[in-house]
Amino acid sequence: MDITEFIARSIGHWRSQRSVHHLAFGHFEAVQSEIEIVSLRPEDSSVLDLCQTHSIDPQTVSSPFRMTWEGQSDWDETEVLAGSCILVPVPDPQTPNRGQLIRDQGYAETMAAVGDYRITEDNAFILVTAYDRAAAEEKIWFINPNLRCRVSCIKTSAGTGVVTASFSTEIRQET
Amino acid sequence: MDITEFIARSIGHWRSQRSVHHLAFGHFEAVQSEIEIVSLRPEDSSVLDLCQTHSIDPQTVSSPFRMTWEGQSDWDETEVLAGSCILVPVPDPQTPNRGQLIRDQGYAETMAAVGDYRITEDNAFILVTAYDRAAAEEKIWFINPNLRCRVSCIKTSAGTGVVTASFSTEIRQET
Repeated sequence: MDITEFIARSIGHWRSQRSVHHLAFGHFEAVQSEIEIVSLRPEDSSVLDLCQTHSIDPQTVSSPFRMTWEGQSDWDETEVLAGSCILVPVPDPQTPNRGQLIRDQGYAETMAAVGDYRITEDNAFILVTAYDRAAAEEKIWFINPNLRCRVSCIKTSAGTGVVTASFSTEIRQET
Repeated sequence: MDITEFIARSIGHWRSQRSVHHLAFGHFEAVQSEIEIVSLRPEDSSVLDLCQTHSIDPQTVSSPFRMTWEGQSDWDETEVLAGSCILVPVPDPQTPNRGQLIRDQGYAETMAAVGDYRITEDNAFILVTAYDRAAAEEKIWFINPNLRCRVSCIKTSAGTGVVTASFSTEIRQET
């Protein structure tokens, strides 16, 4: 599977159940949300802007998309978690199952970021993103066309300490 | 990584946080438990008995072990979930990263089962077990020597419907 096929399978409206394990304290957090993944044309102005910011040739990008989410955590049921961001894959021309994923700041708590992705022989998409003081590793795979799983680990960049690990099951909704 | 190394890394005492997603209803269940994984000698009588039941030559088994667990779910805090079983890997002589995993009935709710495992290039252990009316797929991998992740999906054997998906983070405890 290449990035184009992976993203084509991801386009749609998903209902997500996410469990966050706060490892140091053994705490559980439950988040329920709706996720919308929409493909963008490479010539969309938001994609061209992002390419310019990162000095990327727009000809080299593949399957850009927008992700929008809205949800609620059982830690604070009065707060709505909502946001949106634009994601632009830039496949490595030498090794087509690897590349970079550029993300804009979007709105809400998203940080602008550049991550490195690869797609394994098992068709799992793995994304590693380094931040100033932390690193995130995310693994996404399909159980069937209508069910995606996602595991994310956040580590402090100083060491190997993993702070939180989360698991999402995402079920495709009829649109 | 081969099965011997995978099991050597798994031996020990682990504190587990498990989130179960009951997908049809969007329900979350949180389970906290302690897991003990102890290696057994191939000539241990419980291993030899299990080999005999399944007509397996005891010379072909590799790294048998016992797993014992005790925990509590937030769905019924008065009930203690506890059990133990013996697990015997039988590597495929042709393809050493694949094989069968034989499990005895143990005590508590465990069912005797024979599953097919493989270890991926990413060092994930994947186990597929078919039951009478369901199939389970389990994926276990190490984030670091002291943190294991485990994702399990239970499907009805009739179709592709996934009933529950669960995620465990297992942290090694000092012994």
